[in-house]
Amino acid sequence: MKTKITDLLNIKYPIIQAGMVWVSGWELVSAVSNEGGLGLIGAGSMKPDLLKEHIKKCNAATDKPFGVNIPLLRKDADELVKASLDEGIKIFFTSAGNPKTFTSLLKEKGCTVVHVVANLKYGIKAQEAGCDAVVGEGVEAGGHNGADQITTFCLIPQLVDKLNIPVIAAGGIADGRGILAALSLGAEGVQIGTRFAATVESSAHQNFKDEIVKAGDQATVLAFKKIGLVRIIKNDFAIRAMKAESEGWNEIQLRELLATKRERIGIFEGDLIEGELEAGQGVGLINDIPTVKELFERLLNEIEITNRKNNNLYKG
Amino acid sequence: MKTKITDLLNIKYPIIQAGMVWVSGWELVSAVSNEGGLGLIGAGSMKPDLLKEHIKKCNAATDKPFGVNIPLLRKDADELVKASLDEGIKIFFTSAGNPKTFTSLLKEKGCTVVHVVANLKYGIKAQEAGCDAVVGEGVEAGGHNGADQITTFCLIPQLVDKLNIPVIAAGGIADGRGILAALSLGAEGVQIGTRFAATVESSAHQNFKDEIVKAGDQATVLAFKKIGLVRIIKNDFAIRAMKAESEGWNEIQLRELLATKRERIGIFEGDLIEGELEAGQGVGLINDIPTVKELFERLLNEIEITNRKNNNLYKG
Repeated sequence: MKTKITDLLNIKYPIIQAGMVWVSGWELVSAVSNEGGLGLIGAGSMKPDLLKEHIKKCNAATDKPFGVNIPLLRKDADELVKASLDEGIKIFFTSAGNPKTFTSLLKEKGCTVVHVVANLKYGIKAQEAGCDAVVGEGVEAGGHNGADQITTFCLIPQLVDKLNIPVIAAGGIADGRGILAALSLGAEGVQIGTRFAATVESSAHQNFKDEIVKAGDQATVLAFKKIGLVRIIKNDFAIRAMKAESEGWNEIQLRELLATKRERIGIFEGDLIEGELEAGQGVGLINDIPTVKELFERLLNEIEITNRKNNNLYKG
Repeated sequence: MKTKITDLLNIKYPIIQAGMVWVSGWELVSAVSNEGGLGLIGAGSMKPDLLKEHIKKCNAATDKPFGVNIPLLRKDADELVKASLDEGIKIFFTSAGNPKTFTSLLKEKGCTVVHVVANLKYGIKAQEAGCDAVVGEGVEAGGHNGADQITTFCLIPQLVDKLNIPVIAAGGIADGRGILAALSLGAEGVQIGTRFAATVESSAHQNFKDEIVKAGDQATVLAFKKIGLVRIIKNDFAIRAMKAESEGWNEIQLRELLATKRERIGIFEGDLIEGELEAGQGVGLINDIPTVKELFERLLNEIEITNRKNNNLYKG
């Protein structure tokens, strides 16, 4: 398959695995890149030294391109960038911050830079900052979300119409039908998160993977609107958070309730009651825990079947 | 074009115009049906006598199939059903209520019944009630929405996987890319609302149509979570409602703020400050007010271009 994104990233299929905290370590990343997609190390849950270790191990496990995702809200984002450059990383996905912060520096170093955006305004900012592409992330996506709550269906075509750089679609994509739908909306590639979190190679806790498999169409909620919107599985903790919001708790009270390390507790340690279980609304489409290889075969097959079905529209 | 929905409804293209309050009168409906789609009269803003008048005028203006949309939360829904049957209506779309209420009766009368659902549970209920198809309506859609806030991208493939009856996709579809995306997700047809509200033949006030054209990607919000979620344009009234919710107002206070007839005031009378401007998140994709004929030509052309682009994926 060939799109502007396969050309830009020098990959075989326009399928990118999102750099998720506590999920996207070297095992998942190298497996995805070895199948012809692009794996992204999720630096958001790593200190610079650990990130270096993952990059080294990933380099040993694949000779295909892979990258890192760096959330710019991290206070030590500059150290994560430096660690990545030291280890020879050439593909950076940045998110949750101003695309101007590192893009010029990274472009000078000959890197490819992709910024994650949740509305048109930030898409334009990313293009102006010199990014090579954007990920348009719909509110279906797990984890942190834009306050505007724009869905994949509405966000992608608007970015495509207004930007000159290619758009990668993210949010709610969990199978080959979703991939072809995203490409139909004008995307040149897709970034898939939660579906890859529930694979054998994902470093998430087995409890979290099992929870994704069990989850249905109503399983996730958008919580913490006042202090930073996040999509999580509706577990005990999430229900408490929703109640607090409905009662009009203020920001300080909500921050106390949220506390810290809840992502780690939930996703990595497998505490399904107290943890913050970041997952996309597409969980209802996920019913097993395949290897990355099995998953890629399935996705590619589904894309082809869906395209054939679309062609039959005209044959009757 | 041929799908299970074009077969079921005996129409040329799998494109259905949503039955919107104050928007979908006989002029819009007959124009859509004459172009080969399915027009739906929006009975939600009509008394039974007015509905009869619209059906009569629509019958005079087209010999193609058209239908009515009946919101079951209306206390006089039975009278709207009777009025429609009296005038020979054979296609019923029901929404906002229990699909069991009228489906058996309507099936006995030889009618086609389609129910609008916003999650899987109600999709299964609609199928069990004997409906011929469902509309799966994502939270992108304008007006009343399901509390679960499931998006089109996530809702449609889950309905398709679990139901035996065909699924029509709604919510966020405003151009041919969106139509092919919806079909890729497994839908057999689409229901389009806001895009048709901003056409020459729509009975909405010109101010409302202009507001849709002006609106961008961040223009709509989900308001009134506690008393019935609704997607509206973020005007003065909507901002007041959001503030009230964020302060934890209770249901009684919110109902007082909402008051009555705000839809009419906004959509039909064109009061952009005090009105409740029901519109889908896809407003950002709408940049003109074409005739229905012009719109159909454009949509069909876009579907074809998009499908050709998808086929090129494999050619490189």
